[in-house]
Amino acid sequence: MPRIAYVNGSYVPHHEASVHIEDRGFQFADGIYEVVACINGKMTDERGHLDRLERSLDELGIPMPVTRRSLQFIIREMVRRNRLKNANVYIQVTRGVAKRDFPFPVEVPPSIVLTARNFQFDNNKNVEKGVTAMTVADIRWKRRDIKTTMLLAQVLAKQEAMDGGAYDAWMVDDEGFVTEASSSNAWIVTKDGKLVTRNATTSILRGVTRTAFEKICSGLQMKIEERAFTPAEAYEAQEAFNTSAVALVVPVIMLDGKKIGTGEPGPVAKKLYAEYRAYAEGQRGEHVEWVANLDEDEA
Amino acid sequence: MPRIAYVNGSYVPHHEASVHIEDRGFQFADGIYEVVACINGKMTDERGHLDRLERSLDELGIPMPVTRRSLQFIIREMVRRNRLKNANVYIQVTRGVAKRDFPFPVEVPPSIVLTARNFQFDNNKNVEKGVTAMTVADIRWKRRDIKTTMLLAQVLAKQEAMDGGAYDAWMVDDEGFVTEASSSNAWIVTKDGKLVTRNATTSILRGVTRTAFEKICSGLQMKIEERAFTPAEAYEAQEAFNTSAVALVVPVIMLDGKKIGTGEPGPVAKKLYAEYRAYAEGQRGEHVEWVANLDEDEA
Repeated sequence: MPRIAYVNGSYVPHHEASVHIEDRGFQFADGIYEVVACINGKMTDERGHLDRLERSLDELGIPMPVTRRSLQFIIREMVRRNRLKNANVYIQVTRGVAKRDFPFPVEVPPSIVLTARNFQFDNNKNVEKGVTAMTVADIRWKRRDIKTTMLLAQVLAKQEAMDGGAYDAWMVDDEGFVTEASSSNAWIVTKDGKLVTRNATTSILRGVTRTAFEKICSGLQMKIEERAFTPAEAYEAQEAFNTSAVALVVPVIMLDGKKIGTGEPGPVAKKLYAEYRAYAEGQRGEHVEWVANLDEDEA
Repeated sequence: MPRIAYVNGSYVPHHEASVHIEDRGFQFADGIYEVVACINGKMTDERGHLDRLERSLDELGIPMPVTRRSLQFIIREMVRRNRLKNANVYIQVTRGVAKRDFPFPVEVPPSIVLTARNFQFDNNKNVEKGVTAMTVADIRWKRRDIKTTMLLAQVLAKQEAMDGGAYDAWMVDDEGFVTEASSSNAWIVTKDGKLVTRNATTSILRGVTRTAFEKICSGLQMKIEERAFTPAEAYEAQEAFNTSAVALVVPVIMLDGKKIGTGEPGPVAKKLYAEYRAYAEGQRGEHVEWVANLDEDEA
């Protein structure tokens, strides 16, 4: 069975899925994206991701290519047609195809592309063993609050960290404070047990999964300080970890060659991961019924 | 006759020309571009554009997709197959198609796409009448010296200027200095007759056409000061203009609603335009012979 993608109204074999060379996503990075995780047949924080998708589009003056309800349907179809239960559904929307010119084109419909792939939710080695990270300069543009496909700085950050022998990058702004990891939010647990993560302004992307963790922490009476912190503070932390929809909660056991805490995944990250699993599995909504039907079809 | 594009080794009808949805140019803005102007059958500053293309790729660790000689051939074929004499040849190179993941993929060939379109070289209204501009905040990333397709900030700058009633944007950095126009270099002529344009660091893209103008000015004994200048200094200037391969030299007759000089295209911009035409028409190289053959074929 071929892998299936969705492109501007059609479900097509993934390997044939294409966009025009004058799609503004290709020529100008004039578009946005989201990744929704489907865990055990349930969409995790779908509302949060679609809210953020709509906000990103609104900030750029790009209309929604389809209604939210249609998009929810397409997301589910992508999971179903690709016969997945744990999936990362990638959604990209661009300003559409137009003769190359900088200003917004007039009366051009936006483009929409979805892909889905298997999501290794269980037995995730990074979650279990933790990863190393390296600080690199954050050279991104100033509207980091919009989830655009202007991702080259993050690509270079991640590659720089890997070339330096680390798994991921923690980006550091001109003032010397950590902004975020290359594609996730960065957290530390201070010596006195406080969870610290950067306050969300235009300096970072407000993580949907981060927001879920904030709720989880609140339920556990764990206090979060939303503020900037330095690499030096992180070196001295008990624990450090990253959160994202795709990586969930990944312990950072070493930063810039310095062990964080014991140099092993710590209890806070483990606790939050367990809580997040319960949270993801407790997700509700119309998809539950739809997944039940899927289970029957596939049985 | 259909318009022709070049995509990864094939000349294809422009309307069918496409790239895979997992091309890193589409998903990460992980690529670069150049535009080479063909004026009256002659490639203008082709060497400078190809040098910069190679430098941009080198900075990003992307190999040349074809040899320079092959690329020169493809550029000429694009002009020939589209039956153009004055053309803008757009060249885009990306890190290629790979399963979506931030680090550089291994052993993936880069993608290459070319388009060509008619270049309105004569009777250019903007050159003759000048344009208005508006200052906007420069919110771009820090590697503006690489000609990447991370162009959304420029798209938004241009649109903000147009929404404000101006034709183009002049971008201003955090320190209050003009960096460049949305897709060209910005210049002023001070009251005492000095040409001023920003020094090229990582803050701006070093324009190939700007370099041509530097040579022209040098030949005319016109002194250029390479330094940052403020909008306030521009308001008081005798003249202002933009230079680029596509726009050539476009007088900026009004900035932020304030007339520059007389509010008409000034003598320096007009002189430089005339000189640039002569420069473009005096371009030499292997293409001349090739164009001679084209002339015969088309006769």
